Amino acid sequence: MELKVLSNILKANEAIAVENRQLFAREKILVLNVISSPGSGKTSILERTIAHLLPECRLGVIEGDIQTSKDAERIHALGVPVVQINTQGGCHLDANMIKMALPDLPLKELECLIIENVGNLVCPADYQLGEDMKIVVLSVTEGDDKPSKYPAIFHESQVLIINKMDLLPFTDFNLARAKEAALQINPHLLIFELSCKSGQGVDSWASWLKSKIKRHRLGGNMGQ
Amino acid sequence: MELKVLSNILKANEAIAVENRQLFAREKILVLNVISSPGSGKTSILERTIAHLLPECRLGVIEGDIQTSKDAERIHALGVPVVQINTQGGCHLDANMIKMALPDLPLKELECLIIENVGNLVCPADYQLGEDMKIVVLSVTEGDDKPSKYPAIFHESQVLIINKMDLLPFTDFNLARAKEAALQINPHLLIFELSCKSGQGVDSWASWLKSKIKRHRLGGNMGQ
Repeated sequence: MELKVLSNILKANEAIAVENRQLFAREKILVLNVISSPGSGKTSILERTIAHLLPECRLGVIEGDIQTSKDAERIHALGVPVVQINTQGGCHLDANMIKMALPDLPLKELECLIIENVGNLVCPADYQLGEDMKIVVLSVTEGDDKPSKYPAIFHESQVLIINKMDLLPFTDFNLARAKEAALQINPHLLIFELSCKSGQGVDSWASWLKSKIKRHRLGGNMGQ
Repeated sequence: MELKVLSNILKANEAIAVENRQLFAREKILVLNVISSPGSGKTSILERTIAHLLPECRLGVIEGDIQTSKDAERIHALGVPVVQINTQGGCHLDANMIKMALPDLPLKELECLIIENVGNLVCPADYQLGEDMKIVVLSVTEGDDKPSKYPAIFHESQVLIINKMDLLPFTDFNLARAKEAALQINPHLLIFELSCKSGQGVDSWASWLKSKIKRHRLGGNMGQ
């Protein structure tokens, strides 16, 4: 019974996600859905990425949070159009929340829309928003066993960002083991190692994204 | 409509949680429901706590994970009765899962049952399991803004463990700000600062828990 309800909810969500996806495709906007546990550094990665891509790329952001507008304020400070969605207890963004937020963004002017999901490594994996790709963030302080313990999101994502690399020497995190576990779940996963604190790896990730945005704009394929 | 469904599910869950709670009360077992994001250190805290409480206290553990039995194996290695629940994608434990797991535990012999929930700072807050108290774990690497961004679980918990204190010097985590935010949501929250790596603070937390277990056994009140 519960499963049936969930399946109906997911179907209803999928229909709206398709609408969103068509709209994004018409406007040639590359859309990222950034997912991680609370505190893995999603907003810091956005800040670093935005600083690297501006002013060359025209970016917009949707911030998903249960409550507060702290993250949106951090993004707003960078001069990027941003909409805050407060889910009021909800554990994930869904396609309809995104649809409702879109009129508040200057879509015609955007090349890339970055959606920061609610901090949750489980539920957001089930809800399509209409994005082109999911980016999963794992910080080294969370432990290298997380891909095998929370496989769905690693399976659904195109990119894995391993964050807080500056803290690696102070943890037991085995980088090789984490990558191997993630690639076992999803051999197509593209992996970037980052430290938002030191800036390590930001260039490589942001340059890849920039080229992706530009190729998307030209109607190129979505290959790596 | 969706809200109504959720409310029915929660009501059904609550009825089973009441059954569980009555059973635990009859057996005088103190039951903890430990909740945090993935990788905050719940299992490491359990290992440290168990090492401190054995052999004086008779402990049992239920491990909740989406999949894998990694955590249960770590607890089993300590010689403590443990049952692994795999939720197969589910983002939280519910009361019925606990009810189904109980026949595999030697309840008559236990004084304290520690339930480690699925790594998720959001959804487990809504599902009563029949526990006496919720323990929320926040590691310093997750950022001091987490209580205000994920208030429900801080509101529902009796104890906050701030973990990974050994990493504090390498982060921007403001301990005073985190505690203030948590206490603003829940002034009755008892806060322990821990490092499972260095052992800092384990004595204080485990001694408090030991005295709580003993008083519960004697039918004492549940005050701090």
